[in-house]
Amino acid sequence: MCLRVVLVEPEGEVNVGFVARVMKNFGFKNLILVNPKVSVEDALSYASHGDDVLKSALICKNIDEAIKGCSLVAATSSRVSVGEDLLRIPMTIKEFAKKVAQLKDANIAILFGRESVGLTREEIEKSHVLVTIPASKDYPSLNLSHAVAIVLYEIFSAKAETSQAGIVEQPKPKEMEALLKNVEQAVRALKMPAYRERKTEIVLKSVIGRAFISRHEAYVLSGFFRKVHLLLSRSEK
Amino acid sequence: MCLRVVLVEPEGEVNVGFVARVMKNFGFKNLILVNPKVSVEDALSYASHGDDVLKSALICKNIDEAIKGCSLVAATSSRVSVGEDLLRIPMTIKEFAKKVAQLKDANIAILFGRESVGLTREEIEKSHVLVTIPASKDYPSLNLSHAVAIVLYEIFSAKAETSQAGIVEQPKPKEMEALLKNVEQAVRALKMPAYRERKTEIVLKSVIGRAFISRHEAYVLSGFFRKVHLLLSRSEK
Repeated sequence: MCLRVVLVEPEGEVNVGFVARVMKNFGFKNLILVNPKVSVEDALSYASHGDDVLKSALICKNIDEAIKGCSLVAATSSRVSVGEDLLRIPMTIKEFAKKVAQLKDANIAILFGRESVGLTREEIEKSHVLVTIPASKDYPSLNLSHAVAIVLYEIFSAKAETSQAGIVEQPKPKEMEALLKNVEQAVRALKMPAYRERKTEIVLKSVIGRAFISRHEAYVLSGFFRKVHLLLSRSEK
Repeated sequence: MCLRVVLVEPEGEVNVGFVARVMKNFGFKNLILVNPKVSVEDALSYASHGDDVLKSALICKNIDEAIKGCSLVAATSSRVSVGEDLLRIPMTIKEFAKKVAQLKDANIAILFGRESVGLTREEIEKSHVLVTIPASKDYPSLNLSHAVAIVLYEIFSAKAETSQAGIVEQPKPKEMEALLKNVEQAVRALKMPAYRERKTEIVLKSVIGRAFISRHEAYVLSGFFRKVHLLLSRSEK
């Protein structure tokens, strides 16, 4: 997937710098500035390690130039409609990201409007889809760089989900079995009434299950419960 | 749900202002600044319509003050571990947001670290769960206000998705505190070498934090760990 972040007439250097940084954070590098009202030089000090993204940004005179060659153009807006204004019927960024993550070899441009007034209707018309970030009805208008951050975060996450096989090393089945055996023995060593013993065992196993523990954690937990069991059965004798 | 956004020693007025704005965007209003390095006045010009959030922010001297009365404290970090560093085993913000959206009457604090160095290990230890925003391995460190934006966006979205049906009653802050105290005493009663004791404590707390236990589960677990402690200290005599 090739993704262009297109800022239309951005007005603030903080935002432009922050956008470059967050693009780098999520592994995107094609930044296009359409008729920017700030200089790249001024924005650089806010880009941190995204400075290379900003330095290699393309400057275009208009949107047509910026979206040339793109098979999918998305406009973004917080001003959306639930029916009346047909131009402003949106999809959420979550839905959009899921779709986009499944595209192969697509050239995608996402347009972000001016800090002050967003995108014009003419600009929205040049796009294929209107994307929105659900937010509070009282004040749905996000800062420009925050909007870019959330959009790129969702696309990054959706892409990762479609191709991820778990980063943490899981306990092997035998290790998990051993851990649960140790839990059981530790609980029994406490000589509680049967119904409490049962409850305790269930809760401990369920908590361990829900935490999706790593292999190393399984090892440490096993040690703990085994030791409880050993010490208590020893003290009995 | 009552959610506190806790900025620990924030260093930049742009970020503090932007955080207030994005809190307003997603309908959150409890901002706490722990020992801030910038003045609220300087930050105000970046808060836009979030200025009321910033003006009503609490200023605290330390984290303990900021998290007082919270039953769930989350630390955020881009520096996470996949096994070796037990203190840094995270859950993703997506997972966290889903869990949090199901909690009833919970007092939640989310800690965000300094722009320069994040949260210290001691600060992470004060929390029940470590939350991370998956990002590019090349440069995973997000701008502070972007991190807050994505965290609040996910919680806002998850809340919108969750119906009242699946809501779980949380342990009260005192119950959570008591549970963790019981865990500590049980582990100490085992008289392990110090480094293993430490490790065991960290893993038990982290597993309990990540499992988002119910009030009833907290009660059962407390009983288990208390009993381990009691029996072992009795057998000693």
